[in-house]
Amino acid sequence: MTEMATRELTVARDVLHATVVTIGSALGMPEADARILAESLVEADLRGVHTHGVAALTGYARRLRGGGVNPTPRVRVTHTRGAITIVDADHGLGQIGSQFAMERAIEAARASGIGAAAVRNSSHFGAAAFYAAMALPHDMIGFATTSAGNRIAPIGGRTPVVGNNPFAWAIPAATERPIILDMAQSVVAAGKIGMAARKGEKIPFGWAMDGQGRPTDDPLAGAAGLLVPIGGPKGFGLALIVDILCGALSGAALGRELAKPHQPDTPSQIGHFFMAIDVASFTDVASFKARVDGMIRQVHESEPASPGTPLYVPGEIEWRLRERRVSDGIPLLKSIVADLKALADELGLGASIATAT
Amino acid sequence: MTEMATRELTVARDVLHATVVTIGSALGMPEADARILAESLVEADLRGVHTHGVAALTGYARRLRGGGVNPTPRVRVTHTRGAITIVDADHGLGQIGSQFAMERAIEAARASGIGAAAVRNSSHFGAAAFYAAMALPHDMIGFATTSAGNRIAPIGGRTPVVGNNPFAWAIPAATERPIILDMAQSVVAAGKIGMAARKGEKIPFGWAMDGQGRPTDDPLAGAAGLLVPIGGPKGFGLALIVDILCGALSGAALGRELAKPHQPDTPSQIGHFFMAIDVASFTDVASFKARVDGMIRQVHESEPASPGTPLYVPGEIEWRLRERRVSDGIPLLKSIVADLKALADELGLGASIATAT
Repeated sequence: MTEMATRELTVARDVLHATVVTIGSALGMPEADARILAESLVEADLRGVHTHGVAALTGYARRLRGGGVNPTPRVRVTHTRGAITIVDADHGLGQIGSQFAMERAIEAARASGIGAAAVRNSSHFGAAAFYAAMALPHDMIGFATTSAGNRIAPIGGRTPVVGNNPFAWAIPAATERPIILDMAQSVVAAGKIGMAARKGEKIPFGWAMDGQGRPTDDPLAGAAGLLVPIGGPKGFGLALIVDILCGALSGAALGRELAKPHQPDTPSQIGHFFMAIDVASFTDVASFKARVDGMIRQVHESEPASPGTPLYVPGEIEWRLRERRVSDGIPLLKSIVADLKALADELGLGASIATAT
Repeated sequence: MTEMATRELTVARDVLHATVVTIGSALGMPEADARILAESLVEADLRGVHTHGVAALTGYARRLRGGGVNPTPRVRVTHTRGAITIVDADHGLGQIGSQFAMERAIEAARASGIGAAAVRNSSHFGAAAFYAAMALPHDMIGFATTSAGNRIAPIGGRTPVVGNNPFAWAIPAATERPIILDMAQSVVAAGKIGMAARKGEKIPFGWAMDGQGRPTDDPLAGAAGLLVPIGGPKGFGLALIVDILCGALSGAALGRELAKPHQPDTPSQIGHFFMAIDVASFTDVASFKARVDGMIRQVHESEPASPGTPLYVPGEIEWRLRERRVSDGIPLLKSIVADLKALADELGLGASIATAT
């Protein structure tokens, strides 16, 4: 047994889901909302995106209890016109307003071929892929994006003005797994720099800059400093466009207005933007999906540079992991399980979640 | 006077525009279409994007004369539903069907808040920024993207399956210049590798891979091989998503079906996808644009890492160049001017375009 394996506990999907619902309810959320939250977090853990899985619950709890997040938001449509909707998320967890808004975008796309929704007064929504993927059962292409706390400076600058704003695209396929591209705009995720800091390892130059905008190999300076965007001005540009889609269309915070979206006692003012594109409005769905399958096979059948290297489409590694974890359970770091237990204890819940293997 | 300056001729914008119209007409294009072409190419040269400026005309002429591009396309709407339109570009120059399609997307956005158009049976459309920017006078956000010949392999692979598919976003501002992000998915443009090859200079590792998918510093191997996508799987993923938006929604070629889109005698089968988002449908236009201005100023007012370094938003360098060139003329490489003259001579035109300074 590897050291990593000894540091993990395996938890069944349903057990983990029920635990989140129990904790969410104890934090004052209506059960239906706690179920949306559980779906979003457990789905991320199933796909191996643990930063957006149940590990996020501790921070959410702090904000739900501190007043920064409203446990009982009255999510509502403030404005609609044609195929677009503006949603006020009433300072709830981002998952609640986002699921609502993506449903509106899907409805609009069914009627108009394309639909969009912008959300204001929201907070961290978890993994973008979750909302983009909501389009898939409707044979639609999904797009989901959010603003996030400032971590990226203009090229040549040292004051961060935009977040490492992620977006996700989801594309339906026929017999192949759907394509899901969920990406932020930095060369590496902030979590990887934090991991190096915890291990006391240097990071490669090109991952981060210190607070003065200088390249650094010190993970602590990098964690306190700036993320390096992919392709320099390209990644910075993408983060800026997302900031405007999420902030300026909806009336949410923009740029440095969003400097500290994770304070326990202050609303985030994070914004989101969602879009759905109805394949059937453009073309025959079966033929579209067969062609996407063909595209996926072109990727698989591309010649590898080194013999035997598997070639993947975006999201494929996560789908494969998900399939295994749905049947075998989800391996979680012991520290994450311990945090969940501590939270449950604090809330006076007897719930025990771990089924160690 | 630098060596570069001696190798350039300065041509007035109107003179260059008229030259393209004359050449386009001599190639059999209706004058209205030749004007669209001239607008697209001269605009790119004004913005300093010379690869998509009049330098492209020689290749276009070869395809217009060889039968690969139809000089008199009957661009038509094949299908419309709600806020989306499918356009058949009838194998004309990409500029013709693309301007038509972006106009449809803008109309749809005026009615529905968001609109989209997909184009099939098209060819190279020049700079994506041109179509995205069409949204700006309507106080809309524009998005434009196209498929392109295969230059990017899956991560770990050596068979290219997607193009270095560019896209552009345009965002209206109030007193500041609009934001225009026009980017392809590679670390550097193919043209930069070609330039190094012509100069006999090595390229840095990380720009390109040879035909076997191995990193290379040889510009000739790189030019014949693969482009490296930004952020590895992120850039590859973006190119793949664009391919599907442009190919699978419209019925244009997809992936390796588009291996050779620039043959003189064979239609390209390139596809495009356009989108417009109507700001007024979401929020008050004046307040939106004032907030975008504020975001642009946040970028300008960010602290530079080295004192005095100017900080830019996407498209700003190109706007500044454009302002100078509108009044002072467009510097063009002597070789580009010579190619234009040779083309004019071949077509029996007496037109002389150069106004050397």
